[in-house]
Amino acid sequence: MDKPAIKILGISGSLRKGSFNTAALRAAIELAPEGVSIIAADISDIPLYNEDVHAHGLPESVVRFRAQIRDADAILFVTPEYNYSVPGVLKNAIDWASRPPEQPFAGKPAAIMGASPGVIGTARAQYHLRQIAVFLDLKVLNKPEVMIGGAADRFDSAGNLTHEPTREFIGKTLAALQDWTLKLK
Amino acid sequence: MDKPAIKILGISGSLRKGSFNTAALRAAIELAPEGVSIIAADISDIPLYNEDVHAHGLPESVVRFRAQIRDADAILFVTPEYNYSVPGVLKNAIDWASRPPEQPFAGKPAAIMGASPGVIGTARAQYHLRQIAVFLDLKVLNKPEVMIGGAADRFDSAGNLTHEPTREFIGKTLAALQDWTLKLK
Amino acid sequence: MDKPAIKILGISGSLRKGSFNTAALRAAIELAPEGVSIIAADISDIPLYNEDVHAHGLPESVVRFRAQIRDADAILFVTPEYNYSVPGVLKNAIDWASRPPEQPFAGKPAAIMGASPGVIGTARAQYHLRQIAVFLDLKVLNKPEVMIGGAADRFDSAGNLTHEPTREFIGKTLAALQDWTLKLK
Amino acid sequence: MDKPAIKILGISGSLRKGSFNTAALRAAIELAPEGVSIIAADISDIPLYNEDVHAHGLPESVVRFRAQIRDADAILFVTPEYNYSVPGVLKNAIDWASRPPEQPFAGKPAAIMGASPGVIGTARAQYHLRQIAVFLDLKVLNKPEVMIGGAADRFDSAGNLTHEPTREFIGKTLAALQDWTLKLK
Repeated sequence: MDKPAIKILGISGSLRKGSFNTAALRAAIELAPEGVSIIAADISDIPLYNEDVHAHGLPESVVRFRAQIRDADAILFVTPEYNYSVPGVLKNAIDWASRPPEQPFAGKPAAIMGASPGVIGTARAQYHLRQIAVFLDLKVLNKPEVMIGGAADRFDSAGNLTHEPTREFIGKTLAALQDWTLKLK
Repeated sequence: MDKPAIKILGISGSLRKGSFNTAALRAAIELAPEGVSIIAADISDIPLYNEDVHAHGLPESVVRFRAQIRDADAILFVTPEYNYSVPGVLKNAIDWASRPPEQPFAGKPAAIMGASPGVIGTARAQYHLRQIAVFLDLKVLNKPEVMIGGAADRFDSAGNLTHEPTREFIGKTLAALQDWTLKLK
Repeated sequence: MDKPAIKILGISGSLRKGSFNTAALRAAIELAPEGVSIIAADISDIPLYNEDVHAHGLPESVVRFRAQIRDADAILFVTPEYNYSVPGVLKNAIDWASRPPEQPFAGKPAAIMGASPGVIGTARAQYHLRQIAVFLDLKVLNKPEVMIGGAADRFDSAGNLTHEPTREFIGKTLAALQDWTLKLK
Repeated sequence: MDKPAIKILGISGSLRKGSFNTAALRAAIELAPEGVSIIAADISDIPLYNEDVHAHGLPESVVRFRAQIRDADAILFVTPEYNYSVPGVLKNAIDWASRPPEQPFAGKPAAIMGASPGVIGTARAQYHLRQIAVFLDLKVLNKPEVMIGGAADRFDSAGNLTHEPTREFIGKTLAALQDWTLKLK
């Protein structure tokens, strides 16, 4: 019996063109199981959060981002770690997305992945993001935790994820997010 | 005997004009003990961090911010809490400031304050900032921890800190940061 | 239509007889909505975790605690904060409960409450416990977050929760845990 | 010119005889630079914390532990990670040590090391311990951060640290703690 189709919004925390994390999100889009479609958010033109600006209305880029969140059945964060935490760029996009009147993340299932050149592979950023998710009321998958260390050896120079075990691991994570999303419907 | 003069760079994590945190930083500037001068950084025109942009050189606003950090003897963060963590705006400024070639925060003494309308008063953001500070190698004062809750009752409508015990507490914090800075020289 | 009956295991993180947290757990037992029964675990005789002891089998108190976890449909932690984190006593009980061969917390719904004399009301301990819960694969309710500050004014000298809004808040939390548990079945 | 002699109290978070962390502490004792002596605390007979017990006086094992902390110029924690946090056993010892009347950790310099069989190597436990240290007012060294992953390959079967780069790294850490301690005197 077919599973009902779900839509996932993928959010990369890096703006760099050659980003391992954006590459991991592209891999996830490719590896999505049947019944799952993933689209990538673009947070590159979201301005710095300023409540005075907000008082005059939401910027166009934020309106679009919030609509994408609202339309998604689940959220997939793919984030680097900067200075032992979530990148300011990703946090800023979350800050804009979560302000009143409505909070579009509330109640949505979510999963977190991260890639880094080093060994620890974004663990510290991911636990900060999990605390942020408590406020946002995102239902974050506990496992698997996708922490891709040694990223330089797992992607080719064109940004393709070539490391087969990592591809399988991402596939399993997406299947877990699919099941979690359907369970919480 | 006079204490040697020190310079502190104050960084507010909010861009809002009427921000309680920017107001708390203004109060700190006013309350600085003898021998301490505090200036306020302006992070409002620092762009979103993007390593591709960085590859072409540091933006002017970042060059200026890094120079201010380098020139300071100590750092004073005054930060709101957004979504149970540090505002993206503040984290983004830190991300820009900390990238190679040099890392200007390294080894500097620091203190953290925060103001919020609610009860918990930025505690969650402050502990995330403390973890970030481990990477930055900032020597953050353990105590006092300045968490100003119920901020709406402690500042007047012009943004002046009118709550006397809070004024004294900030004064004591600045004196502690002064001593800590002189000890680590 | 009646909701199916569920059993919740309540775990207080304090061994003190007059503990506000044990008192809050007693209040929860009393306030349990229809269809929910809560029993309190006794962790006072669980020894310090030592893998060498474990190699000779689980102590009787741990066997009993693990069976209670296994039998429960959901877990309710009620924890004080010691030194900005979870009490060692509670963490030690979790450490014993979670070791191989099986891990009885895995997949269970959970909620966290905490009471303290001070203002912040166990927030810091609760976020540490949430990170621990990621490893344990507990599905912790995001909201409500029950942080009972100023506990000395909310309980009478016999340890009865007399503060009506707190009683209502605990009731709502238990109803939310009930719904969450039934949804995840 | 000789550096003044300092005494460090080493605290292992594991009670297991063959513990990698206790072995790492033994290695640290051996690798202590000139002018530094390290002794190991024994926390195996500290009972579960209970304020009712405390009201009748400190247990003998706690009196001894607190005296060792008081006598030390600096503290060296060597801790495994259990369930993504500090072991209950170590936290319980800290809870006993830190209760009134005096708090013997206050103001002391400290460093953190940890060993684990896995890749991440106790990172999560160490950041929790750093938050605990804020309350304790321990001045924890930011760097180096000693996270010994893959411990099974770095110690021999008798518990000797045989991995030369790890030995050097521990030596450097101890020298950094020595300098930090002398600076803060």
